[in-house]
Amino acid sequence: MHFEVKILGSGSATPAWGRHLSSQIINIEHQYLMIDCGEATQFRMIEERIKVRKLNHIFISHLHGDHYFGIFGLLSTFNLNGRKNDLHIYGPRGLDEVIVTNLRVSNSVLGYKLIFHEINIQENEKTQVLLENNIFKVTAILLCHRITCFGFLFTAQSKSLKVKADKFPKGLPFELIREIKLGNDVNWEGKEFLSNEYTYSKQEKKVYAYCTDTIVQKEIIPIIKGADLLYHEATFMEDNEDRAKATFHSTAAQAGRFASNAEVKKLIIGHFSSRYKELDLLLNEAKEHFETTDLALEGRSFMI
Amino acid sequence: MHFEVKILGSGSATPAWGRHLSSQIINIEHQYLMIDCGEATQFRMIEERIKVRKLNHIFISHLHGDHYFGIFGLLSTFNLNGRKNDLHIYGPRGLDEVIVTNLRVSNSVLGYKLIFHEINIQENEKTQVLLENNIFKVTAILLCHRITCFGFLFTAQSKSLKVKADKFPKGLPFELIREIKLGNDVNWEGKEFLSNEYTYSKQEKKVYAYCTDTIVQKEIIPIIKGADLLYHEATFMEDNEDRAKATFHSTAAQAGRFASNAEVKKLIIGHFSSRYKELDLLLNEAKEHFETTDLALEGRSFMI
Repeated sequence: MHFEVKILGSGSATPAWGRHLSSQIINIEHQYLMIDCGEATQFRMIEERIKVRKLNHIFISHLHGDHYFGIFGLLSTFNLNGRKNDLHIYGPRGLDEVIVTNLRVSNSVLGYKLIFHEINIQENEKTQVLLENNIFKVTAILLCHRITCFGFLFTAQSKSLKVKADKFPKGLPFELIREIKLGNDVNWEGKEFLSNEYTYSKQEKKVYAYCTDTIVQKEIIPIIKGADLLYHEATFMEDNEDRAKATFHSTAAQAGRFASNAEVKKLIIGHFSSRYKELDLLLNEAKEHFETTDLALEGRSFMI
Repeated sequence: MHFEVKILGSGSATPAWGRHLSSQIINIEHQYLMIDCGEATQFRMIEERIKVRKLNHIFISHLHGDHYFGIFGLLSTFNLNGRKNDLHIYGPRGLDEVIVTNLRVSNSVLGYKLIFHEINIQENEKTQVLLENNIFKVTAILLCHRITCFGFLFTAQSKSLKVKADKFPKGLPFELIREIKLGNDVNWEGKEFLSNEYTYSKQEKKVYAYCTDTIVQKEIIPIIKGADLLYHEATFMEDNEDRAKATFHSTAAQAGRFASNAEVKKLIIGHFSSRYKELDLLLNEAKEHFETTDLALEGRSFMI
């Protein structure tokens, strides 16, 4: 199963040190999903040669500008490119209003259907399923920031047939084995080989969790526990813990401890404050608490 | 007098071929003014090392996204940088509404005062003075586009004293001449030299006209006649004249003929359609009608 997370930007608040603002492209079995859309995201998509036509779902975590100011230009470019496919946008209440206001004042009519899905999680619920099909599911998670903010959990599931190799007779040609693996019955030297006798079904599950902007939320550990990959913000370092707390952000150390407690397989950190030019100090701080950590640098792809 | 036009972007509609969207910085005697603010303008300002603190006036020509989607991020960055100075924004009705809507949904409060000046020109008026001080004047001009659109005329005036060099006695020290030129009276070898007897006042006037997006408007020729520099859009080439007309844009040839009729000293063309990768063909087409033409490529500075 192909499950890839491509980082388009991981700066916070304002552009600094050549870093772009929050946006990621998730590729699950060649279905493209976008998380957050900071200013200049469409420029980053061009640089990364991501075809905008393939994008049908955009998830916006919250309404601070560094996470959504790029959506207006992207919607406009979709239109200029002659898009006809429906576009689904998931985000907090208010996102629809700013989009519609921009379209109205510019007298713009989109040539495609824009479907807005409001994310609205009550305090006692913690999650909301946003999208589910036979390949993946997207769930919003309530985070804790200065304004309403959501994380996202991407769960991909696939069933594939595995062959019982030890049951095959010697000499069975490879091309016939491939047919059996695809679920087809075959004949060889007068004998019938039924696929369901020579294969077993294997379920594969991969999970990606995206958590920004937020103070570390222990309450959501049961939700993301054991995820294959966790993106967690690390806006500050531990020596700025007070500043992190006051602005409802996290430190690199907190992100590392959180990843450790949630027993995820890998952590990537991002949403770096513009005060940090070099990021290795943040990486090292997180690694002290969770070794399998990497920087979510723009342009990087993480395969799950 | 320092009068400089710096091009931040000159693409139209959508980013293409590495070109950014419309924005220019005008520097008149080290007072900075911005015209238009397409998406990613704040990124371009960083690249060009333009200090955002120096910018107090932003002029938006019209409400198509490629001319204003960058303003939200810029206002936010001003705030994060601790700006205290008033910021004046001039644009069509509706610009204030989208800005206020964005601020409201993101629960943002700016630490500086935002003063919106609505540009509103009646058909029989053609111009509106937006800003006037002892150094320069900015006038909006009614253009003709699919939606309400304004050009801008920047007129800088300065008075300086020139010395009547032939009246000076031989041997008068240079440093005393400099004092006289500054308007000060001096004594030399027992004789008094009154500045107003040895100098005359010279008025210097420089004019920059910015016209995009529009079909060529012969009616405004009397307004911009003889300008030192004219930026005119050249979205298409002449073989797409029908397309230019249908979308209320101009061709390079039309821009050239317009510059010639308006007897400006120099023309720069921009707002290039994404269909053109190479721009020399547009330049040559304009030059056939007006030799003193240049491409308004991003990063270029034009001194007036």
